[in-house]
Order: sequence, then structure tokens, then C-alpha cells
Amino acid sequence: MPEVDRGPAALVGPVRIIGAGLLGASIGLALRARGLDVQLEDLDPANLRTASGLGAGVPVAGDETEPQLVVVAVPPDHLAGVIEGALEAHPGAVVTDVGSVKSGPLATVAAHADVARYCGSHPMAGTQHTGPLTASATLFEGRPWAITPHASTTPEATQVVTGLAELTGAMPLTFAPDEHDLAVARTSHVPHLMSALVAGRLADAPEGHLALSGPGVRDVTRVAGTDPGMWLQIVPANAPAILELLGQIRADLDRLESAIQDGDREALRGVLANGVAGTKAIPGKHGGPVRPTTSLFVHVPDRPGNLARLFADVDAVGVNIEDVRIDHDPARAGGQVELVVDQARVEDLTEALDARGWALHQ
Amino acid sequence: MPEVDRGPAALVGPVRIIGAGLLGASIGLALRARGLDVQLEDLDPANLRTASGLGAGVPVAGDETEPQLVVVAVPPDHLAGVIEGALEAHPGAVVTDVGSVKSGPLATVAAHADVARYCGSHPMAGTQHTGPLTASATLFEGRPWAITPHASTTPEATQVVTGLAELTGAMPLTFAPDEHDLAVARTSHVPHLMSALVAGRLADAPEGHLALSGPGVRDVTRVAGTDPGMWLQIVPANAPAILELLGQIRADLDRLESAIQDGDREALRGVLANGVAGTKAIPGKHGGPVRPTTSLFVHVPDRPGNLARLFADVDAVGVNIEDVRIDHDPARAGGQVELVVDQARVEDLTEALDARGWALHQ
Repeated sequence: MPEVDRGPAALVGPVRIIGAGLLGASIGLALRARGLDVQLEDLDPANLRTASGLGAGVPVAGDETEPQLVVVAVPPDHLAGVIEGALEAHPGAVVTDVGSVKSGPLATVAAHADVARYCGSHPMAGTQHTGPLTASATLFEGRPWAITPHASTTPEATQVVTGLAELTGAMPLTFAPDEHDLAVARTSHVPHLMSALVAGRLADAPEGHLALSGPGVRDVTRVAGTDPGMWLQIVPANAPAILELLGQIRADLDRLESAIQDGDREALRGVLANGVAGTKAIPGKHGGPVRPTTSLFVHVPDRPGNLARLFADVDAVGVNIEDVRIDHDPARAGGQVELVVDQARVEDLTEALDARGWALHQ
Repeated sequence: MPEVDRGPAALVGPVRIIGAGLLGASIGLALRARGLDVQLEDLDPANLRTASGLGAGVPVAGDETEPQLVVVAVPPDHLAGVIEGALEAHPGAVVTDVGSVKSGPLATVAAHADVARYCGSHPMAGTQHTGPLTASATLFEGRPWAITPHASTTPEATQVVTGLAELTGAMPLTFAPDEHDLAVARTSHVPHLMSALVAGRLADAPEGHLALSGPGVRDVTRVAGTDPGMWLQIVPANAPAILELLGQIRADLDRLESAIQDGDREALRGVLANGVAGTKAIPGKHGGPVRPTTSLFVHVPDRPGNLARLFADVDAVGVNIEDVRIDHDPARAGGQVELVVDQARVEDLTEALDARGWALHQ
């Protein structure tokens, strides 16, 4: 996806944020840090107090300057209505939203006379929390932020919303709304649902079977552990794209089951090789190609200080750590720490850590 | 699963290891570290040289003492034949294997007159490597090791194989062979296959769509990136258990698709809630119940030294890190480090890291 053209500062404010939850308040904090005026609205006075108390903006009083941009940051079910309301209430403003599905709200809003002032968007950021209490000016730092102009969005509206993403430190990427929805179905919604199906098979496992769980199943099911609340709104809102992909996965599952039933190793190889190709297609660190890395496993007694000591020792060798994972030891207070490092440096690191007394293996 | 009764040292050696690959050589190294005599066999002279060179044991010459235990550590396709061969060649020895599927080889071996001396086993350890070059005496340290006596295995054989697991530092857990196969289908084989299906949908993603990939899809698809080689032997060997679970997942997929098609949020909630329950069923750290943790996200410039500095700062607060993950920043040389810590300590840690100048959020 080409990066959006970064013109001169397109967004100067004021910015009106409707919905002072985690995303809304975090946007407010990021914009305040850049010196913009931020006006806050929320149906919940507690959210409003918390967000403004944190410095995310000033609650609207009714006498403020008209905003240049309105950011709608309400739950998915309410997006379309609030976007329409914003277009009406602020006839000079660009309106965007930060919802995770774009086509649905657009279908409703499209009939609005002023829809040219609306440009959807979707920051790829969030945490397990939902309220403004854990909002942060750095939430969007370096994250992709999808900008989804529709057919009649004005260039100015797109530019202002792109400016919003830039001012928060995010990386703006343009998508057509339906393209965006298919992309997030593929990279987020369907992986989440499939993770839930795998995790669901664990829920009724016979006593003791899960003692054999290793890092693999923990990885595959991790996202399924998040609260279903938001997903109950996201999934129905993106039903067409999700159903299309689930249909493809069902066809693959058919092929997989046949391959296993028939003992057809070539067909099985095809399914597995396609999976390998898929993992390689995910952009690597810093958006570049995936660099060859190797994992080094270090046994680390689980006490404060040991991780710091390990990383200091790695640092002394001058090797950059690409990724870290801790696999806790089910038997005792300790764990294996997996250090993912540049393949070319693994020998040096192994020798150096070994010399420093760490028990390790590749 | 009850832990195996730990009697007096049941295994004194010598131990004959057939197959000096990663697992075989690692077992040799672990046993040599405990002072046992280890005899090595491998069809590949290079493997034998490497493993013995590392100190994993001595290549057989033909004049050695008869082994107390033979460990068969060959690829899945060859297990049954080599186990039978070992029972015949060593009429006084207990025989085990370290294959990841137990019922299949047993079905073949069961007809053997001396099958009572055979007790299967399966260490839950391994890496992306396969040869002896990366073998390690600590590979099994703290990992579960399934011990799978069949109906006519002698108590002595079970005890000797349990002793093997214990001497390598692993945690022995007993399972009936078919129970074991269902357990690993659930906790390893099916999660791997489903991960491959999700990753497969990424392989043909339109240009640019994967730029929206976040940590969730990386987690779900990570295991699908491993080389298909070994899986092409494991999956057919455990076909019945895998097909049973895939059938259940297909039924869940039916329910999920209907729920989405019909906009039935209660049914969707059921699928998602079942997934949450499944993730909670996985045993927590050190086998105990899952403790409430919270994630703290810290922005860390991606240069050697920064991770060490971060962990030293965390250490200074005296907070133990339960897990760590690095989500690389696609836009610039940096990343968000997710620190998973005890929920009760997150406020202290936030304050302390904030005071030390780290940009962070929950």
C-alpha cells in the first residue's frame, strides 16, 4: 500500500473528539502534546472527567470555536448515527471515525448530502482496556493507521485525516473502504475467530491433557483470551468479508481432512507449505523483508534481576534482539527465554553467553 | 495428570540411544552429565561423529555391555521397526521411544512377544533444528515428558523410562497411549494445522493488505512458519485423533458461520466465550492456576542496550516479568515492548518507568 502523500501540516485544529474512551482520549493526548486545541464529548460524564483530567482536551461547553475536524470514536454499533450527527452539527468540519469496519457505516452515511466531508479511518492500535483511564499519547506511535476515503471524499478531507494520523505518530496507509474491511478480516477478524475455535477445543479437554501444552498452542490461542465484548460488534459489522474468508478456510479444511483421511502426503504438504508462505508474506520488522533469524533458548531462573542480567550480557556482545519470548517452566520457578537474533550473530552470542555461565541451546 | 511415583533411581545405565539427532543427542548429553554410560547408534556416520564429538556418548563398537535401556529416537515413519529391532537385539533391556505419536507404533509392536519391556514416551521439547549440532543437555529441563505405558508394560519398564525423564530434568506425566495421542492432537497437532489454514489465507492476500498485520495474526500464525518436514510424518501417524478434533472444529465453524450469517449475537457470544474459557484452561506458570496479569507497553528504540536498560529499570522496582513480547514498529527502527506483570504491581511499575523517562501505556 503506498504511503499517503505527506503535504504541509493539514491539521491545525481545533479537533472535536466524540467518545472519550481509550482511542478518543489517546488521540486527544497525542494532539494536545502537539499543541492542538481538543474539544471532548462523551455521553458518560465519568469518561469525560477522566479524559479531560488526564489532559486529553476540554469538555465542550457550547461556546467553543467550530472544529476543523471531528473524530468519532464511539462503539461500532453507534458509528453511523454519530457520524451523520457530526456532519450536520459541524457544517464546516471534516469528519472521520476510528471504527474497525468501514463499509457498514459508510453505506448508511453515503446518503447524507455532506458525505464528501467524511473520510473514514482506522488506527491499528488498542489494548485489552477500553476506558480513558489507560489512554496514552504514544498509543499510535509507529502503528499503521488506515485512511479510507470513499468515492466522493474531497482531497482536503483525506489530507486532514491523514494529518491526524501523522500528528499522533502513526503511519497512514490508504485503502478503499471495502478493501480495508477485507484486509482486516484477513489480518485480524478471521485469525481471532479461528483462534477462538482452537481455544474452544481446549475448554472441554479431559482432565490433565492440557499439561502437555507448549508455547505453540499458547501462541495460537492467545488472542482468543480477550473479552468478547467488542468482537460482538465488530464481527457482525464485517460479516460479508469475514464470511468470504471463512468460506475459503472451510474449503481448505475440506482439502486438509481429505488429505489426512487418504494419507495423501503431497496434498498435506501443499496445505502446510501454503501456511509457511503465508507467514513469510507478513511484512517483517520495519516493514521490510523478513530477515533470517535464529532462536537461542536460555534457561533463566525466574527471579527479578535475572532477565536484566541476561539482556545486559547480550548487550555486551553487541547483538540486537529481534524478539523475545518467555516460556514458563511448568515444573519449577524458572523459564526458557527465547532470544530471536540475526542468524549471522548467533554463534558469537552463544559463545559469549556460554562463557558467562548461561545454560542455553539453539 | 498425576505425576509418576518417583522411586529410587530406576535408571543406572548403560543407555543405548538409536538415532543421534537433536533429541537423541540431547538425551545423551543430559545422561552423560549425570554420569551414565551412553552408547550411540545412527545410520548416518556424520550424526554419530557430531553427537559423540559433543560428548553425547560413545558410538557402538559391538563389544559393549548390554544396555539397561534402549531409547529409540528415529523419525516417526521408522519408529515401529526400530523398536521391534531393539526388543530383539537387547533381550534384557527396557525399550522406549521419543516419538510424538504413541498408538500407531504400539499397534505394530503389540504383536511382539517381548512387548512388556516396551514403554513409550514423548518429551515435549524440541526446536526448529533437527540434527545433533544444536543438541543440549538442558533441552528437557522443566518440560513435560509424557510416559505412556500400554496394558502389558511391566512396572519396572515404566519406572526405568520415568527415571530417564527425571534424569534429564523433565517432568514425567503418565498417559495411556491413545489418551496421549488425543492430548497432543488437541494441544499441538490441531493448533498447528489451524494456524497453517489461517496463514494460508495470508499467502494470497492482495498487495498491501498485510501492512495492517498486528501482533494478533503474528501470534496465531507463528507455528505455521516451521518446516513441514516433520509434520508430514506426525500428522498421518495421528490421523484418527486429529480427524476427530477437526470434525469438532468443523461443527463449531458451522455454528460460527450461521451465527454471523443470521446476525445472532448470542450464538456468536457462545463461540467467543468458549474460546476465552479454553485459554483459561491452559495451565498457568509453573503448572499453577493462571494469575491475573496486566500488560504494560513501553516504546523502546531498537538499538542494542535499550532492552537491557529497560529490564534493569524494571528490576530496580523489584517487579517480576511474567512474559515479554516485542512488537516491531513497522514505521521506524523501534518497537513496543509488552511487559506482562502481576496486576497488583502494575501501578508501581508504571510510575517508576515513567519517572525514568520511558514512554509507556497500559
